[in-house]
Amino acid sequence: MNTPTHQPADARGHVLIHDPSLRDGHHAVRHQLGAGQLRAYAEAANTAGVPVVEVGHGNGLGASSLQAGQALLADDEMLAVVREALTDSRMAVFMLPGWGTTADLRKAIARQVDVVRVGTHCTESDLAERHLGFLRDAGVEAQGVLLMSHMATPERLAKECAQLVSYGASAVGIFDSSGHYLPADVTERITAIREAVDVPVAFHGHNNLGMAVANSIAAVEAGASTLDACARGFGAGAGNTQLEVLVPVLERMGFRTGIDLYGLLDAADIADRELMPAPPTIDSVAVVSGLAGVFSGFKSRVLDISRREGVDPRDVFFELGRRQAVAGQEDLIVDVALALREAQRD
Amino acid sequence: MNTPTHQPADARGHVLIHDPSLRDGHHAVRHQLGAGQLRAYAEAANTAGVPVVEVGHGNGLGASSLQAGQALLADDEMLAVVREALTDSRMAVFMLPGWGTTADLRKAIARQVDVVRVGTHCTESDLAERHLGFLRDAGVEAQGVLLMSHMATPERLAKECAQLVSYGASAVGIFDSSGHYLPADVTERITAIREAVDVPVAFHGHNNLGMAVANSIAAVEAGASTLDACARGFGAGAGNTQLEVLVPVLERMGFRTGIDLYGLLDAADIADRELMPAPPTIDSVAVVSGLAGVFSGFKSRVLDISRREGVDPRDVFFELGRRQAVAGQEDLIVDVALALREAQRD
Repeated sequence: MNTPTHQPADARGHVLIHDPSLRDGHHAVRHQLGAGQLRAYAEAANTAGVPVVEVGHGNGLGASSLQAGQALLADDEMLAVVREALTDSRMAVFMLPGWGTTADLRKAIARQVDVVRVGTHCTESDLAERHLGFLRDAGVEAQGVLLMSHMATPERLAKECAQLVSYGASAVGIFDSSGHYLPADVTERITAIREAVDVPVAFHGHNNLGMAVANSIAAVEAGASTLDACARGFGAGAGNTQLEVLVPVLERMGFRTGIDLYGLLDAADIADRELMPAPPTIDSVAVVSGLAGVFSGFKSRVLDISRREGVDPRDVFFELGRRQAVAGQEDLIVDVALALREAQRD
Repeated sequence: MNTPTHQPADARGHVLIHDPSLRDGHHAVRHQLGAGQLRAYAEAANTAGVPVVEVGHGNGLGASSLQAGQALLADDEMLAVVREALTDSRMAVFMLPGWGTTADLRKAIARQVDVVRVGTHCTESDLAERHLGFLRDAGVEAQGVLLMSHMATPERLAKECAQLVSYGASAVGIFDSSGHYLPADVTERITAIREAVDVPVAFHGHNNLGMAVANSIAAVEAGASTLDACARGFGAGAGNTQLEVLVPVLERMGFRTGIDLYGLLDAADIADRELMPAPPTIDSVAVVSGLAGVFSGFKSRVLDISRREGVDPRDVFFELGRRQAVAGQEDLIVDVALALREAQRD
C-alpha cells in the first residue's frame, strides 16, 4: 500500500532529520546494544529514508570505560555493523574532546563515517578547535554542538557557535541536555545563532517537560534546519524528541523530511521491540531535573546519596541547578546533600 | 522541606486544574480500579491541592456494561470512596447522555458531587439540554463539553458552546479526544469559543502527537481558564496531558494553579505505582490514530479486523479518518477493511 500523503497547506522547506537512537539511546541500556540490535534498527532507518543515523557509546567515540560505562561493542565494531546497514543513509558519530581523541577519529574515518559531531559544554567551544580542524583537513563533515545550552545566554551561544564555525564546523547545534527549555527559550536562542552564523543550525531536544516535539517545531520555525530525534524517544531519563512523532507533525505543518511514514513507524516498532526494555516516560525525577536544569545522568547518584543522607532528592536537584552543576561535577552531589542535611538540623 | 518557589517573570492569572485520572485513566485498565486505589490517589491529589478530581467509569455515569466494559465498582461505590478522601478538592463526574440518565445524576448528587460534566459529540450539544437543565435546577455545577472537537470548525464549536450555555452550562470545554491537534488548531478554536461565551472555557488534551502539554499552554494563552490533566498522563492509548508536567510548566510561565509541586509529584508517583501497569507511551498506532483523527478506543478492533482481512491497520485508521468515523460506528471498521482488501486485489 502507498503511504497516505498528508498534503500540507503550504510548503515550508526541508528539515534534515539526524537520528541518534543508536548513540543517545545507548544511555538507557548502559551501552549494551549488540550487533544484531544495531543492524536491525540501522537497516530499518535506512529503508525509511532517515538521512543521518548516529551510532556509538552514549558519550561518543572513545568513551567506553569503567567511569562512563563499558560498551558491549568496541567503537570499531559498532561502526562496521552500521556502515554495512546504511546503503543510503549517512553515518554519524559523536565525540567529546577528552573522551575521544584524534586516534579515535582516524579509526572512524577508516570506517567511512560521513558526519562527526564534536560536542562541548555550551561555554567551552574552544575545546573543539583541534578536532574540528583535524576533521576539516581530513575532508570529513564536522559539526560543532553545544551541550547543556540552557546554561548560556542566547548571545553567548551565538558567539560560541561563530567560534565553532571559525574552527571548521560546517554546521552547529545546541543540545537541551537537561530538557529544560520551553518553546520561547528555543526560539530566542536559535534566532540569535542564526543571526551569527551562515551554516545550518541543529536542535537536539529532551522531553523532561513534555516539550521535546514543541521545542523542535519552535527551532525550525526560528530557522534551524536540522532536528535530532530518536525512535520512541530512546534516550536517558525522559528521553529525546520522539522521531516517529516529530516527522509526521513536521510534514503536517508543511515541512519536508523525505522520510517514508510507514517505514519510519516500522523502524520505531523495531526499536521498541529490539532495543529497549520499555520506551522512556517522564517520571517525577525527570520533571524535577528538567525544571532544575540538571543533567539527567545525575539521577542514580542523586537518589543514592539522598537516601543515605536522609534528604529529599528533589531538593538536591533544585540546589544542584542553583549551583549550575554540570556533568563531571558529581562530587557536588555529596556537598549539596550534606548542606541540606545540616540545614534540616538547624 | 519547603517546595522551592519558581518565581515567574510575570503573573498571568489563575488556571483551574481538573484532574480526570480516576475517570479517563480507567480506560487504560478496563475500568478495574478498586476502592483502595481510588482512595490512595484521591487522598494524594487532595493533599497536593488539586482543585477538582473526577471519578468514574471511563465513559462516565451509568456506562458500566458489557458493551463499554464492566467496571469493578458501581458508580455509587466509587463516589463514596472518593468523596470521603476529598476533604478540600471538589469531586466531579462525567456523563454521556444515553449512557448516563437522570437517575444516575440523582444518585451522584446524593453522594455530594460538586461538578458534573455532560459530554456530547462536538456537533450534538442539543443532546445535553435535558441533563444540563436538570442539574441547573438541582443547583449543581453543570459543565458542557464537546468530544472529538477537531471534527468541527472553530465557528461551529463556538455555536455549540453558546448553546450549552443557554441550556445551563456554567462552563464549557472542548476535548481533543483523538489527540489530533497542533497548538495553532487549539488557539483558533479556543479563541472562537471565548468570543462566543462568557463562561470559563476548558481544554482536554491527548498526547498522540506529543503535543498535549504544548496544546494546553496554547489553550490558556488563548483564554481557556481550565485545563484537564492526569497523573503520568493516565488514560487510553497515548494518554492525556501529564498533570505533574503541566503544572510546573504553567507556574514557570507565570500562571498560578495553587497546587503544591512536591505533593503533586508524590500523587503522580502513587498513581504510577498503584493505578497503572505502566505509564502511557506513544506507540505507532497512537501516532496514526492521532494523525487520522480517529477515536483511539478503536485500536484493538482495528488491529483484530485488519489481521483477519490481511490489510494494513494504518490504512484502516487513515480511511476511518477520511470517513469521519466516530465512537459507536465500530461497524465501519469492517466496511473499511473489506474495501481495502478489495482494492488490494484489483
